[in-house]
Amino acid sequence: MRARVHVFLKPGVLDVQGKAVENALHGLGWGGVSDVRVGKTLEFDLAGVEPAAAEAEVRKMCETLLANTVIEGYRIELS
Amino acid sequence: MRARVHVFLKPGVLDVQGKAVENALHGLGWGGVSDVRVGKTLEFDLAGVEPAAAEAEVRKMCETLLANTVIEGYRIELS
Repeated sequence: MRARVHVFLKPGVLDVQGKAVENALHGLGWGGVSDVRVGKTLEFDLAGVEPAAAEAEVRKMCETLLANTVIEGYRIELS
Repeated sequence: MRARVHVFLKPGVLDVQGKAVENALHGLGWGGVSDVRVGKTLEFDLAGVEPAAAEAEVRKMCETLLANTVIEGYRIELS
């Protein structure tokens, strides 16, 4: 099973990396770009876990290691 | 218009960040995890661009700034 986890800063948390990208794009002439948010995507294979239990298992990984839940949210996709 | 750009290391390029996450997950007891790849996701609003031209415009942003096309590939989603 392939898992994909999207980790994003929560709304309201200042995204300095996004701000830097936004300023760079403006400098290159793309003035119409706004509200840039930069996140992480983790993809991995998951073996030895029942499909029904996989989402709970990946959620546990996010809470433990993959996301800083104080400032980040996450979204899980399984395929 | 909201654009979402996924930037990933090309297959075959060693993903050291992914390797570190994989080792950490193994150490936490998730031995079934393998082939971890870590990528970036950029989301932004795009104004002043015709919907028909938006994808070409975002592609230009990727080639210029958002992705290092020597080692990274990208995927664009518009909504």
